[in-house]
Amino acid sequence: MEEKVKSRIWIEKDGDVFLGYGRIQLLKKVDETHSISAAAKTLNMSYKKAWRLINSMNELAKTPLIVKNIGGKDGGGTTLTKYGKEVICEFETLNNNCMNYLNSEFKKVDL
Amino acid sequence: MEEKVKSRIWIEKDGDVFLGYGRIQLLKKVDETHSISAAAKTLNMSYKKAWRLINSMNELAKTPLIVKNIGGKDGGGTTLTKYGKEVICEFETLNNNCMNYLNSEFKKVDL
Repeated sequence: MEEKVKSRIWIEKDGDVFLGYGRIQLLKKVDETHSISAAAKTLNMSYKKAWRLINSMNELAKTPLIVKNIGGKDGGGTTLTKYGKEVICEFETLNNNCMNYLNSEFKKVDL
Repeated sequence: MEEKVKSRIWIEKDGDVFLGYGRIQLLKKVDETHSISAAAKTLNMSYKKAWRLINSMNELAKTPLIVKNIGGKDGGGTTLTKYGKEVICEFETLNNNCMNYLNSEFKKVDL
Protein backbone atom coordinates (compact mmCIF):
# COMPACT_ATOMS: atom_id res chain seq x y z
CA MET A 1 0.00 0.00 0.00
CA GLU A 2 1.19 3.49 -0.79
CA GLU A 3 1.37 5.55 2.40
CA LYS A 4 1.40 9.32 2.36
CA VAL A 5 1.33 12.05 4.97
CA LYS A 6 -0.78 15.11 4.19
CA SER A 7 -1.28 18.40 5.95
CA ARG A 8 -3.26 21.58 5.90
CA ILE A 9 -1.80 24.63 7.57
CA TRP A 10 -3.48 27.91 8.39
CA ILE A 11 -2.60 31.15 10.14
CA GLU A 12 -4.72 32.77 12.81
CA LYS A 13 -4.66 36.31 14.19
CA ASP A 14 -6.21 36.76 17.62
CA GLY A 15 -7.98 33.41 17.21
CA ASP A 16 -9.54 34.18 13.81
CA VAL A 17 -8.44 32.52 10.59
CA PHE A 18 -6.32 34.97 8.58
CA LEU A 19 -4.83 32.75 5.87
CA GLY A 20 -5.46 29.19 4.78
CA TYR A 21 -5.22 27.11 1.62
CA GLY A 22 -8.56 28.32 0.16
CA ARG A 23 -7.86 31.97 0.91
CA ILE A 24 -4.45 31.79 -0.74
CA GLN A 25 -5.98 30.13 -3.83
CA LEU A 26 -8.46 33.01 -3.98
CA LEU A 27 -5.74 35.68 -3.71
CA LYS A 28 -3.75 33.94 -6.47
CA LYS A 29 -6.77 33.86 -8.77
CA VAL A 30 -7.52 37.55 -8.12
CA ASP A 31 -3.88 38.24 -9.05
CA GLU A 32 -4.34 36.25 -12.28
CA THR A 33 -7.76 37.53 -13.34
CA HIS A 34 -7.74 41.07 -11.82
CA SER A 35 -11.32 40.43 -10.75
CA ILE A 36 -12.94 39.02 -7.63
CA SER A 37 -15.94 37.68 -9.55
CA ALA A 38 -13.75 35.95 -12.16
CA ALA A 39 -11.56 34.52 -9.39
CA ALA A 40 -14.62 33.22 -7.53
CA LYS A 41 -16.01 31.64 -10.72
CA THR A 42 -12.73 29.82 -11.46
CA LEU A 43 -12.79 28.37 -7.96
CA ASN A 44 -16.51 27.41 -8.12
CA MET A 45 -17.08 29.78 -5.22
CA SER A 46 -19.95 32.24 -4.89
CA TYR A 47 -19.09 35.91 -5.26
CA LYS A 48 -20.57 36.45 -1.79
CA LYS A 49 -18.21 33.91 -0.25
CA ALA A 50 -15.20 35.35 -2.09
CA TRP A 51 -16.06 38.82 -0.78
CA ARG A 52 -16.55 37.49 2.74
CA LEU A 53 -13.12 35.79 2.65
CA ILE A 54 -11.39 38.85 1.24
CA ASN A 55 -13.07 41.14 3.77
CA SER A 56 -12.05 38.86 6.60
CA MET A 57 -8.43 38.85 5.40
CA ASN A 58 -8.37 42.61 4.91
CA GLU A 59 -9.71 43.20 8.41
CA LEU A 60 -6.87 41.16 9.92
CA ALA A 61 -4.10 42.29 7.58
CA LYS A 62 -1.75 45.06 8.71
CA THR A 63 -2.14 46.80 5.33
CA PRO A 64 -4.55 46.08 2.42
CA LEU A 65 -4.04 42.90 0.42
CA ILE A 66 -5.93 44.04 -2.67
CA VAL A 67 -6.78 47.36 -4.25
CA LYS A 68 -9.55 48.31 -6.62
CA ASN A 69 -8.33 50.55 -9.42
CA ILE A 70 -10.99 52.78 -10.86
CA GLY A 71 -10.73 53.50 -14.58
CA GLY A 72 -7.28 54.25 -15.98
CA LYS A 73 -5.86 53.04 -19.28
CA ASP A 74 -6.35 49.37 -18.34
CA GLY A 75 -9.97 49.99 -17.41
CA GLY A 76 -9.60 49.45 -13.70
CA GLY A 77 -9.82 46.07 -12.04
CA THR A 78 -8.71 44.52 -8.82
CA THR A 79 -5.04 43.92 -8.16
CA LEU A 80 -2.94 42.58 -5.33
CA THR A 81 -0.76 44.95 -3.37
CA LYS A 82 2.94 44.22 -2.85
CA TYR A 83 1.96 43.04 0.63
CA GLY A 84 -0.74 40.77 -0.86
CA LYS A 85 1.86 39.12 -3.08
CA GLU A 86 4.28 38.76 -0.17
CA VAL A 87 1.59 37.07 1.91
CA ILE A 88 1.05 34.44 -0.82
CA CYS A 89 4.78 33.84 -1.06
CA GLU A 90 5.30 33.56 2.70
CA PHE A 91 2.36 31.17 3.10
CA GLU A 92 3.43 28.94 0.23
CA THR A 93 7.02 28.82 1.45
CA LEU A 94 5.84 27.86 4.94
CA ASN A 95 3.51 25.23 3.47
CA ASN A 96 6.18 23.73 1.19
CA ASN A 97 8.76 23.65 3.99
CA CYS A 98 6.22 21.95 6.22
CA MET A 99 5.45 19.30 3.59
CA ASN A 100 9.16 18.65 2.97
CA TYR A 101 9.76 18.30 6.69
CA LEU A 102 6.74 16.00 7.16
CA ASN A 103 7.74 13.81 4.22
CA SER A 104 11.24 13.37 5.59
CA GLU A 105 9.92 12.62 9.11
CA PHE A 106 7.36 10.19 7.68
CA LYS A 107 10.14 8.07 6.17
CA LYS A 108 11.18 7.17 9.74
CA VAL A 109 7.65 6.02 10.61
CA ASP A 110 6.58 2.41 10.14
CA LEU A 111 2.80 1.99 10.17
CA MET B 1 -2.29 40.93 17.27
CA GLU B 2 -1.31 37.45 18.32
CA GLU B 3 -0.36 35.41 15.28
CA LYS B 4 -0.29 31.64 15.31
CA VAL B 5 0.29 28.92 12.78
CA LYS B 6 -1.91 25.84 13.03
CA SER B 7 -1.95 22.53 11.20
CA ARG B 8 -3.84 19.34 10.77
CA ILE B 9 -1.99 16.30 9.51
CA TRP B 10 -3.40 13.00 8.30
CA ILE B 11 -2.09 9.78 6.83
CA GLU B 12 -3.49 8.14 3.73
CA LYS B 13 -3.07 4.60 2.41
CA ASP B 14 -3.73 4.16 -1.32
CA GLY B 15 -5.57 7.49 -1.32
CA ASP B 16 -7.92 6.69 1.59
CA VAL B 17 -7.63 8.36 4.98
CA PHE B 18 -6.05 5.93 7.44
CA LEU B 19 -5.28 8.15 10.42
CA GLY B 20 -6.20 11.70 11.35
CA TYR B 21 -6.74 13.78 14.46
CA GLY B 22 -10.34 12.54 15.07
CA ARG B 23 -9.44 8.89 14.51
CA ILE B 24 -6.53 9.10 16.94
CA GLN B 25 -8.77 10.75 19.58
CA LEU B 26 -11.20 7.84 19.12
CA LEU B 27 -8.49 5.19 19.52
CA LYS B 28 -7.23 6.94 22.68
CA LYS B 29 -10.72 7.01 24.18
CA VAL B 30 -11.24 3.31 23.36
CA ASP B 31 -7.95 2.64 25.14
CA GLU B 32 -9.17 4.64 28.16
CA THR B 33 -12.74 3.33 28.36
CA HIS B 34 -12.32 -0.22 26.89
CA SER B 35 -15.54 0.39 25.00
CA ILE B 36 -16.37 1.79 21.58
CA SER B 37 -19.77 3.10 22.72
CA ALA B 38 -18.28 4.84 25.78
CA ALA B 39 -15.50 6.30 23.62
CA ALA B 40 -18.04 7.57 21.08
CA LYS B 41 -20.17 9.12 23.82
CA THR B 42 -17.18 10.98 25.35
CA LEU B 43 -16.42 12.45 21.93
CA ASN B 44 -20.07 13.36 21.18
CA MET B 45 -19.91 10.99 18.24
CA SER B 46 -22.60 8.50 17.21
CA TYR B 47 -21.81 4.83 17.80
CA LYS B 48 -22.38 4.28 14.08
CA LYS B 49 -19.77 6.86 13.15
CA ALA B 50 -17.27 5.45 15.65
CA TRP B 51 -17.75 1.96 14.16
CA ARG B 52 -17.37 3.28 10.64
CA LEU B 53 -14.09 5.02 11.55
CA ILE B 54 -12.72 1.98 13.34
CA ASN B 55 -13.72 -0.33 10.48
CA SER B 56 -12.07 1.97 7.99
CA MET B 57 -8.84 2.02 10.04
CA ASN B 58 -8.86 -1.75 10.52
CA GLU B 59 -9.31 -2.35 6.80
CA LEU B 60 -6.23 -0.26 6.02
CA ALA B 61 -4.09 -1.38 8.97
CA LYS B 62 -1.52 -4.13 8.44
CA THR B 63 -2.69 -5.89 11.62
CA PRO B 64 -5.73 -5.19 13.86
CA LEU B 65 -5.75 -2.00 15.94
CA ILE B 66 -8.30 -3.16 18.47
CA VAL B 67 -9.48 -6.51 19.82
CA LYS B 68 -12.75 -7.47 21.43
CA ASN B 69 -12.20 -9.69 24.48
CA ILE B 70 -15.11 -11.99 25.23
CA GLY B 71 -15.73 -12.68 28.93
CA GLY B 72 -12.69 -13.46 31.12
CA LYS B 73 -12.14 -12.22 34.64
CA ASP B 74 -12.44 -8.55 33.61
CA GLY B 75 -15.74 -9.20 31.84
CA GLY B 76 -14.47 -8.63 28.31
CA GLY B 77 -14.35 -5.24 26.68
CA THR B 78 -12.50 -3.69 23.78
CA THR B 79 -8.79 -3.05 24.02
CA LEU B 80 -6.08 -1.69 21.78
CA THR B 81 -3.47 -4.03 20.41
CA LYS B 82 0.23 -3.28 20.81
CA TYR B 83 0.13 -2.10 17.20
CA GLY B 84 -2.89 0.12 17.98
CA LYS B 85 -0.91 1.82 20.75
CA GLU B 86 2.14 2.20 18.52
CA VAL B 87 0.02 3.87 15.86
CA ILE B 88 -1.19 6.50 18.37
CA CYS B 89 2.35 7.14 19.50
CA GLU B 90 3.78 7.42 15.98
CA PHE B 91 1.00 9.79 14.89
CA GLU B 92 1.33 12.03 17.92
CA THR B 93 5.11 12.18 17.61
CA LEU B 94 4.80 13.14 13.94
CA ASN B 95 2.16 15.74 14.79
CA ASN B 96 4.18 17.26 17.66
CA ASN B 97 7.36 17.37 15.56
CA CYS B 98 5.42 19.05 12.78
CA MET B 99 4.01 21.69 15.15
CA ASN B 100 7.45 22.38 16.65
CA TYR B 101 8.92 22.74 13.17
CA LEU B 102 6.10 25.01 12.00
CA ASN B 103 6.33 27.21 15.08
CA SER B 104 10.06 27.68 14.61
CA GLU B 105 9.63 28.42 10.86
CA PHE B 106 6.78 30.82 11.62
CA LYS B 107 9.10 32.97 13.76
CA LYS B 108 10.95 33.86 10.55
CA VAL B 109 7.74 35.00 8.84
CA ASP B 110 6.54 38.59 9.05
CA LEU B 111 2.89 38.95 8.10
